[in-house]
Amino acid sequence: MRLVRYGRPGKEKPGLIDDEGKLRDLSGVIGDVDAAQLAPKALRKLEKIAHASLPLVRGNPRFGVPVARVGKFVCIGLNYSDHAAEAGMPIPKEPIIFLKANTALSGPDDPIMMPQGSKKMDWEVELGIVIGTCAQYVSEADALKYVAGYTVVHDVSEREYQLERGGTWDKGKGFDTFGPVGPWLVTPEDLYDVQDLDLYLEVNGKRMQTGNTSTMIFSVAQIVSYVSKCMTLEPGDVIATGTPPGVGMGRKPQRFLKKGDVVRLGIAGLGEQQQEVIAWRAR
Amino acid sequence: MRLVRYGRPGKEKPGLIDDEGKLRDLSGVIGDVDAAQLAPKALRKLEKIAHASLPLVRGNPRFGVPVARVGKFVCIGLNYSDHAAEAGMPIPKEPIIFLKANTALSGPDDPIMMPQGSKKMDWEVELGIVIGTCAQYVSEADALKYVAGYTVVHDVSEREYQLERGGTWDKGKGFDTFGPVGPWLVTPEDLYDVQDLDLYLEVNGKRMQTGNTSTMIFSVAQIVSYVSKCMTLEPGDVIATGTPPGVGMGRKPQRFLKKGDVVRLGIAGLGEQQQEVIAWRAR
Repeated sequence: MRLVRYGRPGKEKPGLIDDEGKLRDLSGVIGDVDAAQLAPKALRKLEKIAHASLPLVRGNPRFGVPVARVGKFVCIGLNYSDHAAEAGMPIPKEPIIFLKANTALSGPDDPIMMPQGSKKMDWEVELGIVIGTCAQYVSEADALKYVAGYTVVHDVSEREYQLERGGTWDKGKGFDTFGPVGPWLVTPEDLYDVQDLDLYLEVNGKRMQTGNTSTMIFSVAQIVSYVSKCMTLEPGDVIATGTPPGVGMGRKPQRFLKKGDVVRLGIAGLGEQQQEVIAWRAR
Repeated sequence: MRLVRYGRPGKEKPGLIDDEGKLRDLSGVIGDVDAAQLAPKALRKLEKIAHASLPLVRGNPRFGVPVARVGKFVCIGLNYSDHAAEAGMPIPKEPIIFLKANTALSGPDDPIMMPQGSKKMDWEVELGIVIGTCAQYVSEADALKYVAGYTVVHDVSEREYQLERGGTWDKGKGFDTFGPVGPWLVTPEDLYDVQDLDLYLEVNGKRMQTGNTSTMIFSVAQIVSYVSKCMTLEPGDVIATGTPPGVGMGRKPQRFLKKGDVVRLGIAGLGEQQQEVIAWRAR
């Protein structure tokens, strides 16, 4: 099942993408795709509905973040060994955790805004985990039971603020619009193997990142288990699982995003995002 | 004005502490102390109420975090030069930003839970800023207009996870209960000078931290302005502004928290917190 939230920012309605790829409205069935709807029981109920009976949505509405009111936006750093190498950092012995500000959350096709004075805005395609059940100290063997589904996350990163302006990475990762999520929340039974998904990212049509989740250092199960020992994971929390190689910082010469650039990124089975880079503007 | 939220976890009611120090119920006037109630206009309205006419609350109820649904829990690192020295780190040239998981939020007197296997749980008393008005790229001169009030924050920190387990500080800062906030949200007109407040922290009755906000490296106005350029600050966001010297990591020999320890901390004019250290338990 592919759940979405569609419509204008802040006014999104719940929907789903049916087997023919058509957008159907769920607002007659549920209020929103939120924490309560991510519970295993609630998801099973939605699956049992005859999807063809739901109203078709006309036109091509905007997609929002496919989960309402994300509580925490957790990220795993350097989770592909070849990306760690291009970033000039050692391969981590255990998952690196950082947090993105939840004000960074953005729809999958919304423009991404360049912070004022930014010179090193960079891209990172990542597999996103959406938590469905409250998780505390869960084992790796049990971890996947706590996952409602998967999505695409663009972990947009300003390298100067992340690495050269003092302290931790959060500063360069939390700017407004630096966290596009979506378009779909895909439940696990719709994926053949979450550890064998192709990821890609292009800038202005040129392929920059090519990867597969099979080369993650820490698997989805290991990540959920590990993070659940550092903080309670709640339904609706999102965990971005790190990026494969090919970021702008790692290229020779380095290549950072400029106004007018168009980034297209996606993961097989999880859909595609496309963002234009624009100047910062007030919300 | 001193606003509070009192009652059982998750069931807190809004209240205020009157000029005689008595707790009065605000639930007949507002639904909660939340983002909407932190706007300057809403705060002025609450101040104009005859506080003596509000119902007195009997007994000694628990206090919760004085703001409902905190959006972001932002922290500034190494903001007192003598603390930077004891931590063995250089004095920052610009504010260090990190984020605490919002699941770390905890009432001011709730027990703090030791993560399983933790050996280096440490204390940090901090002045907390509560944002009242959405702030984006605000100047230092204007920054204080965006502040609803101030509170006490205990930035509990696990030093092994913060510094020795890979990556950024967030891992050691975000455990459940590692962010007691309160007891009061004090509006600025009730403080003579926010840059001249005494801070203190004791463990089992022994004074560990003694400081004053006059020795901050970056002032409240500088912090609000700086952070507002890195992310949109929203009403109800909390910013912890760094800790003065005297943390356990900086002592010779080092001293970390053990089960049964009692931490008492406070800031002049902002009230006091007291927490017992207990073993981790499921919520």
